[in-house]
Amino acid sequence: MSTDSKDDLVFKALANGLRRQMLDALKHAPRTTGMLCEQFGSLDRCTVMQHLKVLEEAELVLVRREGRERWNHLNALPIQAIHDRWISQYAGHAMSILSALQQNLDG
Amino acid sequence: MSTDSKDDLVFKALANGLRRQMLDALKHAPRTTGMLCEQFGSLDRCTVMQHLKVLEEAELVLVRREGRERWNHLNALPIQAIHDRWISQYAGHAMSILSALQQNLDG
Repeated sequence: MSTDSKDDLVFKALANGLRRQMLDALKHAPRTTGMLCEQFGSLDRCTVMQHLKVLEEAELVLVRREGRERWNHLNALPIQAIHDRWISQYAGHAMSILSALQQNLDG
Repeated sequence: MSTDSKDDLVFKALANGLRRQMLDALKHAPRTTGMLCEQFGSLDRCTVMQHLKVLEEAELVLVRREGRERWNHLNALPIQAIHDRWISQYAGHAMSILSALQQNLDG
């Protein structure tokens, strides 16, 4: 797959608010598909699994099977790649400061 | 506008490969709309301007008018926000190392 097709998968996966919320849910610790279905209780299991599949195809979620359970892990590497593409290593520190400043102004 | 609607604008703007290439073109220096039309010569001026409008609405591009010229600047803050959302400050350094390692392996 070309880099641009891979990028397409990542950005299309992120273009959905619900999938972004699922990544939020995995930010601090991996979760089983069952746990995610419970957390997103307003959706049926099939919908949750479809969204997870999109995230998995974009490699934003890595899956590890343990017995009958599917553990979903956030993979931050594609997100780091977005950052690296447009924010150089040297600008990174300045951006962190600007970003914190803006959060203070917004907050 | 809610945070989620703002995020939607950003991710939908980034979900198009051509718009990502336009941001690449602005990475090192701002460019006038005329310069971008020249660089993306396979597209008509109207198409270039439509894509720029989507990027501007997502605040990924900031525009400064100078006489008759429109200078388009990359605004990296929304990109920094993506990074900050899923990669904590503490994990950032480790992610940079992992990312560099993967590039070496790919390269």
